[in-house]
Amino acid sequence: MADYSAPLRDMQFLLKEVFEADKLWLSLPGARDTVDPDTADAILEEAAKIASSLLAPLNRSGDEEGCQWNEGVVTTPKGFKEAYNTFIEGGWCGLGGNPDFGGMGMPKMLGAQVEEMVQSANISFGLYPMLTAGACLAIDAHASEELKQTYLPNLYSGVWAGSMCLTEPHSGTDLGIIRTKAEPNGDGSYAITGTKIFITGGEHDLSENIIHLVLAKLPDAPAGSRGISLFLAPKFKVTEEGGVGERNPVFCGSIEHKMGIKASATCVMNFDGAQGWLVGEPNKGLACMFTMMNYERLGVGVQGLAAAERSYQNAVEYAKDRIQGRSATGVVAKDKAADPIIVHPDVRRMLMTMRALIEGSRAFSTYVAKYLDISKYSDDATAKQHAEAMVALLTPVAKAFLTDRGLDSTVLGQQVFGGHGYIREWGQEQLVRDVRIAQIYEGTNGIQALDLMGRKVAMNGGKFVELYAGEVADFIEANRDRSELQEFVEPLAAVFERLSDVTEYVLETVEQDPNAVGAASVEYLDLFGYAAFAHVWAMMAKVAIEKQAGDSSGFYDAKLKTARFYFRRLLPRTVSLAESIKSGSSDMMALDVEQF
Amino acid sequence: MADYSAPLRDMQFLLKEVFEADKLWLSLPGARDTVDPDTADAILEEAAKIASSLLAPLNRSGDEEGCQWNEGVVTTPKGFKEAYNTFIEGGWCGLGGNPDFGGMGMPKMLGAQVEEMVQSANISFGLYPMLTAGACLAIDAHASEELKQTYLPNLYSGVWAGSMCLTEPHSGTDLGIIRTKAEPNGDGSYAITGTKIFITGGEHDLSENIIHLVLAKLPDAPAGSRGISLFLAPKFKVTEEGGVGERNPVFCGSIEHKMGIKASATCVMNFDGAQGWLVGEPNKGLACMFTMMNYERLGVGVQGLAAAERSYQNAVEYAKDRIQGRSATGVVAKDKAADPIIVHPDVRRMLMTMRALIEGSRAFSTYVAKYLDISKYSDDATAKQHAEAMVALLTPVAKAFLTDRGLDSTVLGQQVFGGHGYIREWGQEQLVRDVRIAQIYEGTNGIQALDLMGRKVAMNGGKFVELYAGEVADFIEANRDRSELQEFVEPLAAVFERLSDVTEYVLETVEQDPNAVGAASVEYLDLFGYAAFAHVWAMMAKVAIEKQAGDSSGFYDAKLKTARFYFRRLLPRTVSLAESIKSGSSDMMALDVEQF
Repeated sequence: MADYSAPLRDMQFLLKEVFEADKLWLSLPGARDTVDPDTADAILEEAAKIASSLLAPLNRSGDEEGCQWNEGVVTTPKGFKEAYNTFIEGGWCGLGGNPDFGGMGMPKMLGAQVEEMVQSANISFGLYPMLTAGACLAIDAHASEELKQTYLPNLYSGVWAGSMCLTEPHSGTDLGIIRTKAEPNGDGSYAITGTKIFITGGEHDLSENIIHLVLAKLPDAPAGSRGISLFLAPKFKVTEEGGVGERNPVFCGSIEHKMGIKASATCVMNFDGAQGWLVGEPNKGLACMFTMMNYERLGVGVQGLAAAERSYQNAVEYAKDRIQGRSATGVVAKDKAADPIIVHPDVRRMLMTMRALIEGSRAFSTYVAKYLDISKYSDDATAKQHAEAMVALLTPVAKAFLTDRGLDSTVLGQQVFGGHGYIREWGQEQLVRDVRIAQIYEGTNGIQALDLMGRKVAMNGGKFVELYAGEVADFIEANRDRSELQEFVEPLAAVFERLSDVTEYVLETVEQDPNAVGAASVEYLDLFGYAAFAHVWAMMAKVAIEKQAGDSSGFYDAKLKTARFYFRRLLPRTVSLAESIKSGSSDMMALDVEQF
Repeated sequence: MADYSAPLRDMQFLLKEVFEADKLWLSLPGARDTVDPDTADAILEEAAKIASSLLAPLNRSGDEEGCQWNEGVVTTPKGFKEAYNTFIEGGWCGLGGNPDFGGMGMPKMLGAQVEEMVQSANISFGLYPMLTAGACLAIDAHASEELKQTYLPNLYSGVWAGSMCLTEPHSGTDLGIIRTKAEPNGDGSYAITGTKIFITGGEHDLSENIIHLVLAKLPDAPAGSRGISLFLAPKFKVTEEGGVGERNPVFCGSIEHKMGIKASATCVMNFDGAQGWLVGEPNKGLACMFTMMNYERLGVGVQGLAAAERSYQNAVEYAKDRIQGRSATGVVAKDKAADPIIVHPDVRRMLMTMRALIEGSRAFSTYVAKYLDISKYSDDATAKQHAEAMVALLTPVAKAFLTDRGLDSTVLGQQVFGGHGYIREWGQEQLVRDVRIAQIYEGTNGIQALDLMGRKVAMNGGKFVELYAGEVADFIEANRDRSELQEFVEPLAAVFERLSDVTEYVLETVEQDPNAVGAASVEYLDLFGYAAFAHVWAMMAKVAIEKQAGDSSGFYDAKLKTARFYFRRLLPRTVSLAESIKSGSSDMMALDVEQF
């Protein structure tokens, strides 16, 4: 397997040249106090080192060894604990955290790049701090001052870790039917009882304490999703002095044996009257979870990108090295028995497809992160509101489209290796297994598509889509007269026409057909994703054209060529997606249940 | 995991109603002596039992345990040896074998259905007899009478097993550069020396002997693929009496640790001057291999179908059982906390997509098997020649398209399960891991696409495609006036227009662009596959319409509804494929190697 080399040049291209983060940060109170270009560069460079030298070397051994469970104790693979200590010493757990409680307060545009590097190096490892960051977001947004002071500093430092306990054996997507109970102890705390499954990092040996955020029902809670509350329950209770005290009765009953991410402990957690504290209002637990969901979902999308990038780097190295057959245009490596397989068009097709999807993913996730930052930091109410709408609309796309393309890309990267791609020692098959979970957890990609099509499009009559399309239209308008951009601007306009046309079709059919949203949703999200990538690819192409002259590195030239491949080879996929959507729900729903 | 239940009704529908195999067999000398409808039914029913009661129960334990290597000895997982003994007692290894040497002489149309059941139950197990059958085909077609008499009876009985030794560490797709040598011993035999890798069933404990077919170079062989010969080298030499004699120096150096098919031993085989005998003419080894390739490749395609079928059965059971959320059209299960997820359109989309692809795959592979049978058994020279052209054209499509759709389907079947799909105990993730190899071995799917686009289309100026399109045109013409068939016949005609249009485009561009074939190939095969499925789906719909009246089982009704889903939801994919192909090779090849 190739050494992992962080794509810093591409990240800096996006931050500085395409999205001009430096200017944006200066305009945002909060961001301008914590980050400047030099700090950002230093953080990216340091993260690149940590990823390639500390985390990447543990990726395959972690997969081979996996986590071990023994009588409630979970042991992470060899080297993980030492790596975790180094990781938290670098302050990485608090990168995006609230500075009032010891966080570094870095914007998400930067944080997303760091996450990509960590996840490219080692998805299983990356999940532990990712869950901690998620728990911190919920606590920071909704918990009482006392809870924040008690828990956030140790979570940001990574000395303690976090977990999110939502799913139960009978209740996954449908959280309205959870059974875990929270009964008042009379002292302001609650006794939590119930079983949670699929809890990432529910138990492990990396940190001295684990802080669980748990969804449960109060005794008088209304039925369904409006009767769910959020609680904080630590593994070890916290002493008066803020240290680790007695064991709280929440135990890990077993860990799952999974397809991949084997070094990430996926736990069954049994709460046996564990002491917990309410976070946010009673019965508003789902809403509290949703405030952090956008961050988490973008982070999962970035996992798709990260796995694809790693697979791409390996595939490129292999395709340059492996010799097999001869170029159709004449022998290339005269001194060898065959040419490197990168000469073959079909190998190029695989590499270029990966490349176009990866660079599109990185640009799009940075674009979404920009709006997360604006919605968090801006003091301009209009800008904030606009950003919130964009985040709401684009987050499910970032989560599902990036992870779907992540699977596609890792499968392609495996295919480049032929038979060697199927063998464990080359690492390509692990990336396929690891990335597969990202299409499932944090809301399956089917659920993301329903969220997009139902809540973010149909429920507001397409208002958010219009906002977004307006922004794209501004870009098109501004570049309408630049002839060198027409090869990008014209198909961009066409695909947004197509998106608008399909949106209208669904908005119309949903009036008569309650199944219209569900029938269109997955293909709609796909079409949306390809259209959104066309937008960021056109933005990148524009910058590349402007800077191309006099650049001897080939960077901008490669960017332009990849943009062309995206527009001409991949974007046509939207034509079929639109046609499939317009077949409606009737064929899909035609069979009686007994006919299956 | 659901018990495996063989889709016998669908198989009989295809054999009897759609392809009228009974009539065909009567018209073919050879087939008419070995098979009749009752025999065929008995064979299918017996295979169904063996698959579900003997092989399916060993699938997951085989995956968990895997094969073990110890000092050259390979042990298959617990239960495999006993199952193998039962399997060979049933005579299954000789099902398609030459009756002159103890085979049962059954046609491939029937054999393909049996293979599907075996592979649905247990792909790893199924590979052992599959490799034996492949070796038998090559021996039967090319070996001397003496070799046939010595080896075939014990191979058909399964007492001995076969292996195919082609790949070397530096030589996979490009067999022209193999290094394994065969030097004459002076007694008519050869001493074979070299290392082969990725040898399925190269060593194991199931049979008393293993017969290796090995590609090697004679001392005076020309360079490249024209200097490769085929040899037979047994693990144990055969005594005068035909029994097992002294050990031949061919040893298993290690086995691979793989993504899936863990109970199938994938071996490194070291030939240290092993005694072997020439099969076929010197330097014609590749041609000898190719005579069996069509059978093997169809068999690999059937693996894609088989895994998809198994995943589908599991997904349907889960979707009927798992309750989560409520139907958009109103509560269905009033007495439960939620409705079964099969009420949701997106779950239907996944199940219907799998179903349409699976039934299309089964019909298409039966269609290809029909031509294999005609080319083997027919005494009509014209029919035989036509059948050979059809087999040449359609085999790469069957191999690649069925396995690509096999991955798509097993990924969908896993997605239906949500988080449970990622957990090993449900079995869905194993099917994804197991089927993934079928896109790689027996010639990667990229190589299949090059074979189709280059050798089977471009090299003969589209002659084979015209033959095939002519057959489809006859079907269209014969049904042009039947109004109830127009919803199938019209899009069928349109997609074959599209195929012909794209074929013409490639035939034209290849004149100026040597990369045109490679640039178009994968999308071309995909488009071809969807068009071919449209043909068999239209054939099935026609029968279903004719037989629908008075059928209370719902079978024909479901067939028609699934046909509609195929035509309206999936077939539109061809529009984008055509557009992508027409972007040509330039964007794909634009980057300098250093820019990757």
